[in-house]
Amino acid sequence: MRRITGLSNPTVKYLRSLREKKHRRREGKFLAEGLRLLTDARETGLLPEVLVMAEGRESHSLLDALIADVEAAGGDVIEVSEAALSKITGKDNPQAVCGVFAEFDTSLDRIDSDAAPLVLVAQAMRDPGNLGTMLRTADAVGAGGVVLVDDCADPFSVEAVRASMGAIFTVPIAQAPWDAFRDWLRKGPGQLVAASLRDSHDYRDAPYAAPCFVMVGNESRGLPEDYEAECDLRVTIPMLGRADSLNASIAGAVLAYEVLAKLR
Amino acid sequence: MRRITGLSNPTVKYLRSLREKKHRRREGKFLAEGLRLLTDARETGLLPEVLVMAEGRESHSLLDALIADVEAAGGDVIEVSEAALSKITGKDNPQAVCGVFAEFDTSLDRIDSDAAPLVLVAQAMRDPGNLGTMLRTADAVGAGGVVLVDDCADPFSVEAVRASMGAIFTVPIAQAPWDAFRDWLRKGPGQLVAASLRDSHDYRDAPYAAPCFVMVGNESRGLPEDYEAECDLRVTIPMLGRADSLNASIAGAVLAYEVLAKLR
Repeated sequence: MRRITGLSNPTVKYLRSLREKKHRRREGKFLAEGLRLLTDARETGLLPEVLVMAEGRESHSLLDALIADVEAAGGDVIEVSEAALSKITGKDNPQAVCGVFAEFDTSLDRIDSDAAPLVLVAQAMRDPGNLGTMLRTADAVGAGGVVLVDDCADPFSVEAVRASMGAIFTVPIAQAPWDAFRDWLRKGPGQLVAASLRDSHDYRDAPYAAPCFVMVGNESRGLPEDYEAECDLRVTIPMLGRADSLNASIAGAVLAYEVLAKLR
Repeated sequence: MRRITGLSNPTVKYLRSLREKKHRRREGKFLAEGLRLLTDARETGLLPEVLVMAEGRESHSLLDALIADVEAAGGDVIEVSEAALSKITGKDNPQAVCGVFAEFDTSLDRIDSDAAPLVLVAQAMRDPGNLGTMLRTADAVGAGGVVLVDDCADPFSVEAVRASMGAIFTVPIAQAPWDAFRDWLRKGPGQLVAASLRDSHDYRDAPYAAPCFVMVGNESRGLPEDYEAECDLRVTIPMLGRADSLNASIAGAVLAYEVLAKLR
């Protein structure tokens, strides 16, 4: 373990820079915050390359185990002031620990559609909280992965990683433009299902078939009409109230659990 | 319409103060931001007492209609500088308009359990985004309302109002401590259903009965064991992955749609 003092230390600056997408992309690294998340990672066999904690923290057996494992793996364990940790995490009341991980490969061949009856697909999902929640749901339904189509929020953002509650470390993630995703999908047997308001089946009574790719669209605009037209099945979740849409991660979860019940 | 200049104007300070719960409680008012949300309110017959917009905004027919209606109803229409609007909304890039509404009554007699087959219940839900999303889901499933049990996030917080996507204006909301809620419920025929991991039915195959009160617990701790014990039915959503829980608003929505399908 080494100690770093000062808020303008280059390491503190480097860690802080990983809150921004351009720096994550350049470095190929991302931040995960909190002992629970880092313990989730450790339990799936992933250790941070750099582990950072505040001086004067309370002792915790899980943190001690994490420190020992990171040091044994040749990682960097760093102690900073609370002020420096606040600067890194961007929070007044920082969780007591954060770690730097190498970003994962997110090419389409990460997705194994034989491994599970369904895969979740988000198109232009802009909210990192929604995206992280989709990852968490994908873990829960045992999905073969999550495909992020077009310009989605960054799955490696601090907010998405946090909302994923550890699923960032366990769920295969692919990123691709629509054309590339469609071409990849059409080489195999996948059924592409759109959450839609147009020309569609009730979601409870639709002919789902494995491997089923369940796609939800952008939070404001939904799916583009021409994307929907290329789907094998369009399904609608009933909307009995005033509004005409659900939160995108809610719609994805309601559909995913329906597909799971039918195809499991 | 009147124009206010200066960032330290008492009206600007008053509006800004409504971002804090203690000031909302004292004044009995809350803020809603964005033309879409204010238009949702207007369409349900609710107008802000105060409507605030930035100078130099672009003209918009929906905003013009809103201004006319608020003025006709004797409300206060105020133009401020972009800097002042930023100060009120707490955002660098403020939406072009916000409004002040009187808080609604949130006593238990707001809930009409004869009006719908289900009511959603959140216990100690701390995240205002989750809470707003629950309201949005409650609107979508046509719930008879949302009961907020124990120490939940404030449904009138800017974040909850935003995530509700207008459901704050349409879904009856009640707030009550557990004992008061239980006593109220037990005077009538309601079935209390807990999302649970213990001693429970699969959620797809459970004997739901209307009026069905679907309850989810705190984001970290779930429901207290003694609360679960007092429920009429405990149901479990399958978790096939590494994690042992869903996001609370996701769990509530998956259950709510299942109950709706069975009782509709």
